[in-house]
Amino acid sequence: MGKNDILVRLNPNLKKLKRGPYGGPQIILPKDIGVVFGYTDLGRNSKIVEAGSGAGFFTVSLANICKTVYSYEVREDFYIAAKKNIEKMGMKNAKLKNKDISKGIKEKNVDAVFLDMPKSDLIVPLAFKAVKENGWIIGYLPNVEQVKEFYIACEKAGFKDLFVIESINREWVVREHGVRPQHKGLVHTAFIVFGRR
Amino acid sequence: MGKNDILVRLNPNLKKLKRGPYGGPQIILPKDIGVVFGYTDLGRNSKIVEAGSGAGFFTVSLANICKTVYSYEVREDFYIAAKKNIEKMGMKNAKLKNKDISKGIKEKNVDAVFLDMPKSDLIVPLAFKAVKENGWIIGYLPNVEQVKEFYIACEKAGFKDLFVIESINREWVVREHGVRPQHKGLVHTAFIVFGRR
Amino acid sequence: MGKNDILVRLNPNLKKLKRGPYGGPQIILPKDIGVVFGYTDLGRNSKIVEAGSGAGFFTVSLANICKTVYSYEVREDFYIAAKKNIEKMGMKNAKLKNKDISKGIKEKNVDAVFLDMPKSDLIVPLAFKAVKENGWIIGYLPNVEQVKEFYIACEKAGFKDLFVIESINREWVVREHGVRPQHKGLVHTAFIVFGRR
Amino acid sequence: MGKNDILVRLNPNLKKLKRGPYGGPQIILPKDIGVVFGYTDLGRNSKIVEAGSGAGFFTVSLANICKTVYSYEVREDFYIAAKKNIEKMGMKNAKLKNKDISKGIKEKNVDAVFLDMPKSDLIVPLAFKAVKENGWIIGYLPNVEQVKEFYIACEKAGFKDLFVIESINREWVVREHGVRPQHKGLVHTAFIVFGRR
Repeated sequence: MGKNDILVRLNPNLKKLKRGPYGGPQIILPKDIGVVFGYTDLGRNSKIVEAGSGAGFFTVSLANICKTVYSYEVREDFYIAAKKNIEKMGMKNAKLKNKDISKGIKEKNVDAVFLDMPKSDLIVPLAFKAVKENGWIIGYLPNVEQVKEFYIACEKAGFKDLFVIESINREWVVREHGVRPQHKGLVHTAFIVFGRR
Repeated sequence: MGKNDILVRLNPNLKKLKRGPYGGPQIILPKDIGVVFGYTDLGRNSKIVEAGSGAGFFTVSLANICKTVYSYEVREDFYIAAKKNIEKMGMKNAKLKNKDISKGIKEKNVDAVFLDMPKSDLIVPLAFKAVKENGWIIGYLPNVEQVKEFYIACEKAGFKDLFVIESINREWVVREHGVRPQHKGLVHTAFIVFGRR
Repeated sequence: MGKNDILVRLNPNLKKLKRGPYGGPQIILPKDIGVVFGYTDLGRNSKIVEAGSGAGFFTVSLANICKTVYSYEVREDFYIAAKKNIEKMGMKNAKLKNKDISKGIKEKNVDAVFLDMPKSDLIVPLAFKAVKENGWIIGYLPNVEQVKEFYIACEKAGFKDLFVIESINREWVVREHGVRPQHKGLVHTAFIVFGRR
Repeated sequence: MGKNDILVRLNPNLKKLKRGPYGGPQIILPKDIGVVFGYTDLGRNSKIVEAGSGAGFFTVSLANICKTVYSYEVREDFYIAAKKNIEKMGMKNAKLKNKDISKGIKEKNVDAVFLDMPKSDLIVPLAFKAVKENGWIIGYLPNVEQVKEFYIACEKAGFKDLFVIESINREWVVREHGVRPQHKGLVHTAFIVFGRR
């Protein structure tokens, strides 16, 4: 077994951040940041709504690429952790809110709503109202049952072109005497569901 | 076998583009676009050099996210195809050049040099001079032998923190009566090598 | 894209068999035959019960390795197809029955009951009575919902040491000028659930 | 991260064995045992030559299924460890030899020669003489360079129908409140090369 296998590789931005209270909420890793930007047309001109912020790791990833990020977090301790991380990064285009997104999404005509939170399927109808024509709903879901509930909620809300991606990335070891994949690796984080208005 | 399995899913930007002459050069697909942006800190403020342009598919992906893209293409037919695609997308931040990158990289202090071309290992020393401190070299390489050559060239040129990622993404089928992965899928495109100055 | 990618590689025994009526039932492929024999202690001294036979492809795989295979198939057309395949292979140790396994498993003290059939979770309590101490229940299940139902049925019936395996095998292309994985491949057949009495 | 993820699942036979001196040689795991028996027609009637024995883990796997296994091991300490394991299992059909296979394969007309040893490509011509018509050469190789050397050696020796398999197996976690893959897993052991005389 490769003792030095890298199970969780962070990118340089994520390395600067703190996980927050109680070990911190789960964070969204490079492979899944990549899935969001690879399979959509989101980019430097996009306005995105996110919930929940967690400790702000994905908020930073979004703000690094997109024009504006509006991030909702209902838990005050996570909100504070996220705020510190965003301030550390000096990202003015990330707007954090210590608010419950289920009470309503204030922003309209956004390019995407990204949901990584319990019971995110209940937020889908609100997301439909918030995104513009051809805008995206994106759900990050650890379990298969959640994928099914979220997918069906997207269909019911009127989202089209639904698809679900899971990503298994593998690191390789390059040495003069032999090239091979790492022995151990991360084989699951979450499934990512996409739909468009 | 699922007859409707989607082997090559394009994102909405890529769908608007034309492949170019002779069926066109290979294109960089969503899963690999994602790897580039997931594992680096490249984003809305980044200046990137790319070679070759091919038909401009990855140029569009880069220009969608980054501040400026300088893209070198030695073949005139590919250059023309890329130019048409970039014009169609109205992307002013993509600068195409019908030039051989092995003759020199004019840009200095860029955030990354991305290489998807034959013998890209020979360009690595030029890339080292073009990127800024902590800037990235990124190689897109179909075969394992190329990965090894490129990796060793990066080490020799002075790049640090090298790593190699391959991504296997899988689509899932969600139906009321059963959730499962697609039967068929794309299991290889290329390995992606990363290093930093 | 590799036009000659091999999506479904059969082994030499499977190549000799006929698929049966209506294109034939789904067959169990080399990667999953392997999972059954890799993760268990089944071998040349084992007695195994299987349902359903389908066209007998997995019956042949089991009979090639195990001492005796008792295979139940409720559909007469599949039973006939399986019988022809087994006769062609000259395998005397495969005992085919045109019977509904839900009516009862006659064999006792067997080393394993392997189930690849609709509603296989309903057969689990019968399987528990048929297998010997430390004997195996093995379920082959295409959808995640079925995995959950079968797994819970195994727990309720008293099976222990449950685990679930999915296998993604990839073929590699070796050429003097470059080694790489095939581009396209089979990324899903079924999940395989294991438990022991 | 799932703290209880099972990285290396042994089957019940492998659990009974001891690893041998110095932590012991690498062992062949369930996923790769499976690949050998899934992709070939080897079974209860097969005679197999193996080198090296290592601590006899794969010898036990072969002897559990095949008629006779002839296993060569040049290192005396490994040979002794293998002998103890075989004796513990009471497997009379496993014939261990403390011999260097490069000095010659005494057996003729065998169904397969399985090679898991350094420089196994040099043994391929000897294997060609030992296997019967349609018999198998099988190589277990951790690095890609070795795969290439072994594959080319097989071609040169006259083996046909060559193919290379790598297997990524994933375990799933089933709970009432959610089904998902394990977070961590084994993503590489070796590539397995197959050819037939």
